[in-house]
Amino acid sequence: MTSTSSTAAAPRTKVAVMGAGSWGTAFSLVLADAGCEVALWSHHADQAEAINRERINSAFFPDLELPDAIRAYADAQQAMEGARFVVLAIPSQALRENLARWVIPAEAAVVSLAKGIELGTGLRMSQLIAEVTQIPSDRIAVVSGPNLAREIAERQPAATVVACASEDTATALQRVCHTARFRAYTNTDVIGVELGGATKNVIALAVGMAVGFGLGDNSTASVITRGLAETIRLGDALGAHPYTFSGLAGLGDLVATCSSPLSRNRTFGEGLGRGRTVAEIAASTRQVAEGVKSCSSIRQLARDHGVEMPIVEAVDAVIAEQLTPRDMIEALMSRSAKPERY
Amino acid sequence: MTSTSSTAAAPRTKVAVMGAGSWGTAFSLVLADAGCEVALWSHHADQAEAINRERINSAFFPDLELPDAIRAYADAQQAMEGARFVVLAIPSQALRENLARWVIPAEAAVVSLAKGIELGTGLRMSQLIAEVTQIPSDRIAVVSGPNLAREIAERQPAATVVACASEDTATALQRVCHTARFRAYTNTDVIGVELGGATKNVIALAVGMAVGFGLGDNSTASVITRGLAETIRLGDALGAHPYTFSGLAGLGDLVATCSSPLSRNRTFGEGLGRGRTVAEIAASTRQVAEGVKSCSSIRQLARDHGVEMPIVEAVDAVIAEQLTPRDMIEALMSRSAKPERY
Repeated sequence: MTSTSSTAAAPRTKVAVMGAGSWGTAFSLVLADAGCEVALWSHHADQAEAINRERINSAFFPDLELPDAIRAYADAQQAMEGARFVVLAIPSQALRENLARWVIPAEAAVVSLAKGIELGTGLRMSQLIAEVTQIPSDRIAVVSGPNLAREIAERQPAATVVACASEDTATALQRVCHTARFRAYTNTDVIGVELGGATKNVIALAVGMAVGFGLGDNSTASVITRGLAETIRLGDALGAHPYTFSGLAGLGDLVATCSSPLSRNRTFGEGLGRGRTVAEIAASTRQVAEGVKSCSSIRQLARDHGVEMPIVEAVDAVIAEQLTPRDMIEALMSRSAKPERY
Repeated sequence: MTSTSSTAAAPRTKVAVMGAGSWGTAFSLVLADAGCEVALWSHHADQAEAINRERINSAFFPDLELPDAIRAYADAQQAMEGARFVVLAIPSQALRENLARWVIPAEAAVVSLAKGIELGTGLRMSQLIAEVTQIPSDRIAVVSGPNLAREIAERQPAATVVACASEDTATALQRVCHTARFRAYTNTDVIGVELGGATKNVIALAVGMAVGFGLGDNSTASVITRGLAETIRLGDALGAHPYTFSGLAGLGDLVATCSSPLSRNRTFGEGLGRGRTVAEIAASTRQVAEGVKSCSSIRQLARDHGVEMPIVEAVDAVIAEQLTPRDMIEALMSRSAKPERY
């Protein structure tokens, strides 16, 4: 597999991807397509060995061959050695414990793929990375957009946002992950990009509940619209740029996640809407639905900043089993007549 | 059928609905549910007679009973007599010729349900109504939102925007069409509400082409995001309020239309993406896909105001058979790497 991009990185830039789940694996394919050497760290030694032997990640993409440019590692430090970028493809609530065990190479920039807010601290992933690693913000970036992993791995056309406080780092990252099929756009609004990614998972749970409940596209479109409005309000309070939410990492990611049967959060919500319990659904799926964890941390962030987020509040109450999905939908759809405002 | 709303109008406000297509019929059901007396005008005398005799509109909703509060008329003047609101549920390119034949009662406000821009003149429907009828803008309103007619007729929960330059007229209209299942929000930005409704049909054609072409949710979400961005740019040039596009009549309607297999415009685009010609698809469907007509008038508006609208341009070229859907998708998905900006 050679580069398909006219803006490929200098030959064989090394990138470490920490986490061999679906998005970590799909992003490794993008990096390889863009001409990078990819070290893919797996938490499971046998998985790393199987990837190197069989050239597939059988747990997630049993039908997709991994190019030779991707090499799996069970040893995190070995994977990161000499890497220009260390990409963190780990669920948000597990990121701190993993980071605490590792020594990030001094010259590397760190890139978060996780879409969540840490429970208890309310930290965005870039804040958590800064706190644990002491790396300055000009070397901490995030990647977020309408990027369902399965479609990216199949090389369907997609676009994303790479965000960093440093435009130089964002541009350098763009160069190593931009291909003819995966268009990367730079942005310096890390706060907005991270909030868009975290909140959309919670909105997708609400949309899933409406779908599971048998409601149609008018209802789900209304939930998406109001969900974006409350995300913009939260972003405003936290210093994000409002236009970020109208872009790929806001609206784009929200729409993809809420539309796709491939979305874990929407699927989780659908189960709730059909009457299954949180414990039942969690027991039946291997993958993590980030929104189930993030809803209470986002609710807390909103309360701390005096921001009204009725959908996030309602989803959190459903997850905590203090509200039924039926009552949630009734409450959201039966507000009184008034002017449309933000 | 009695009112289900706590804000129902004074008993038996008369509303004329001009046009017994799917949206005209569904909106008549909303008005009847809200407590109005509805005079539903049909262009076809036999259809009007059948509706009154059988209590169904067999062409669109053969399974839904129409309440007695809805009475069909073949005579337009008779339908409008004594009406407080005259609701125009006629395809946008046929509105002028119909309006020119009618005398709107002096006391009535006129409400447009059509989502289009007139060919040749580039007029929005409210401008066209003002030009033909000489009615002042404080009595011309529009209704637009994520309102797939079939779902509304089934009383699925939905929300909409009623817009008028006069807040009083908007509020009066809200009162006659607000029910527990159909939430109406007022807005005074008529320009934004109309542009959102017209442009979304063109974006839905593009999304349909991507779907027909076999692309997934990442691609369609990117097209929706960029489509809204170019709609906001057009609105900015024409004096709309940007927040309208983040609301139900902008984002909401766009997402519903682009997500739903019930959408005519999306379905039309899917046919194009699968390789059928404009003529073939048009011949096989009874209903009008507004975007097929509006794309060239919106493209012209954009050019006249120096606004870049690459999706509208591309859709217009496909409809005019100057560009294949394949080339359109390739062009949209292969722009060069750059910052994400508006």
